[in-house]
Amino acid sequence: MAETIKIAIAGYGNLGRGVETAIAKNKDMQLCGVYSRRSPESLKTVFNETPVYSIDELINHRDKIDVLILCGGSKEDLPEQGPLYAEHFNTVDSFDTHARIPEYFSSVDAVAKANNRTALISAGWDPGVFSINRVMSEALLPDGETYTFWGEGLSQGHSDAVRRVEGVADGVQYTRPVESAIEKVRSGSRPELSTREKHERICYIVLKEGADQEAVRQTIVEMPHYFSDYNTEVNFMSAEELARDHKAMPHGGFVIRSGNTTDANAQIIEYRLKLDSNPEFTSSILVAYARAVYRMAKKGQFGAQTVFDVPPAMLSSRAPEELRALML
Amino acid sequence: MAETIKIAIAGYGNLGRGVETAIAKNKDMQLCGVYSRRSPESLKTVFNETPVYSIDELINHRDKIDVLILCGGSKEDLPEQGPLYAEHFNTVDSFDTHARIPEYFSSVDAVAKANNRTALISAGWDPGVFSINRVMSEALLPDGETYTFWGEGLSQGHSDAVRRVEGVADGVQYTRPVESAIEKVRSGSRPELSTREKHERICYIVLKEGADQEAVRQTIVEMPHYFSDYNTEVNFMSAEELARDHKAMPHGGFVIRSGNTTDANAQIIEYRLKLDSNPEFTSSILVAYARAVYRMAKKGQFGAQTVFDVPPAMLSSRAPEELRALML
Repeated sequence: MAETIKIAIAGYGNLGRGVETAIAKNKDMQLCGVYSRRSPESLKTVFNETPVYSIDELINHRDKIDVLILCGGSKEDLPEQGPLYAEHFNTVDSFDTHARIPEYFSSVDAVAKANNRTALISAGWDPGVFSINRVMSEALLPDGETYTFWGEGLSQGHSDAVRRVEGVADGVQYTRPVESAIEKVRSGSRPELSTREKHERICYIVLKEGADQEAVRQTIVEMPHYFSDYNTEVNFMSAEELARDHKAMPHGGFVIRSGNTTDANAQIIEYRLKLDSNPEFTSSILVAYARAVYRMAKKGQFGAQTVFDVPPAMLSSRAPEELRALML
Repeated sequence: MAETIKIAIAGYGNLGRGVETAIAKNKDMQLCGVYSRRSPESLKTVFNETPVYSIDELINHRDKIDVLILCGGSKEDLPEQGPLYAEHFNTVDSFDTHARIPEYFSSVDAVAKANNRTALISAGWDPGVFSINRVMSEALLPDGETYTFWGEGLSQGHSDAVRRVEGVADGVQYTRPVESAIEKVRSGSRPELSTREKHERICYIVLKEGADQEAVRQTIVEMPHYFSDYNTEVNFMSAEELARDHKAMPHGGFVIRSGNTTDANAQIIEYRLKLDSNPEFTSSILVAYARAVYRMAKKGQFGAQTVFDVPPAMLSSRAPEELRALML
């Protein structure tokens, strides 16, 4: 492993920290710097030796950076940063607004192609490795149904929603797949499952002083889009209990393909993630895909890319001969 | 989907039959013919309309065939047929002698490269999609351990071994992963597991008349390489019971990666197959990879390939834009 891939991080929240940590676990990579909107002095990195710069310096450093990992959010940051930085860098991001992926892909693709850059969008686990399993398992078993279950895990969007309810001081929301639904799918029977039958929602709420517990519960369970289609359990606790028991960010889920090769023979493909930390795992995936982006750029495979375009070998630090000899 | 991919089958055992069935489930494919050493008249195909030819005609038909799927065995057939047919065809095979893959790859690669052909070797589930999961999960979680468990399923090699024991008229062998070992791995503790701790073996035996049951049991459980390192259960039954209960070919297993992104956070990636029919699933995989081979050949990606070289999008009959819009 002669080459070292030089990586930079744009944006330093949970994801940026996770990428900093993940790079240290990949011997063929080197972190050139963290670039943030915050002042470099105020920013506390995981490793003392990590260079920190103002985001304003990023484009000036472009010749020192092989791949830039965009660690901003999908709502505000990436729609702007994706096309902006694809002009100057090979990039990877975790854009995860499923409905807007085609539009985002086009905007990044135009810039990346015009500038001979490789820009891989929407890496992570969903979109990401879950998507790979949806595509591959459908291709391997064309006569079948694919089921995606999320959880048990902390949902950021739903936690935000409960915290906006009047009378709520703080709170979190967990999504949990219904175990009996998973068992039905695993049986090969290809059940039709309603939203309510697939997932349930569990909330842990700290009330504001004087708030009406029953009114809060009612508002949550009846909230359209977020909760009204689910069975929702609402629990109340103190701020101390919430801080003690619910500050981790576990997540995970299942992609299950149930198919038949003949009427007599059902075949089940199941991919499961059980994650202690959702952002750290996403970061670790971004770093593996940065390796692939580096290699695709070297091969001249420019433009926007997704996880669907990356052969497994490109993710690995091992040489192709070693992969064939040891892992095939 | 305007294009139709024209596929031929070389060799007509369980795998060839499975490929014939699988092609019918892929609307962008057409079966041009089954080529067998047996006389075309004696061969009973799944579908009456399937054209059957002598294997001697195969090379004469090469201009009508986009991809040839080699359905012979890894021991006798493929070492000869792989390089032979890679001169004239784009090919896919399920070569599964793990230890000889590098040698087989080289012999096929030389011929395929010299003749501008694409030859994908060792497709299936192990080697195959299990191998992909070993490579990808290691890349996504470099600090970790990967565990492969097989079963519960019928093992062809071990069944052959018990049938060779003196006093055995017929028999089958199932490999079963030890449930407590899987649970230990899923816990994130990264256990060291001995051969005996990972799998157990279960045999169903029909004795020859007058054979000594206890001697047969003893010979089986003490058989080096095959059984002596495992806890083995030996059951005896009549030929009728064996025929009634043990003629299916179920299999499956697990690839589990247990890794840490930080000391505090364990992350588990689990890939599981539960197969009613091992050969039919392998066949279905061969057909999906035939689509990829067709596309790689069109792009000029010649030479021997493995599943590690194939981007997920190439396996799917859907267009890239559709994959991004619907499945990412």
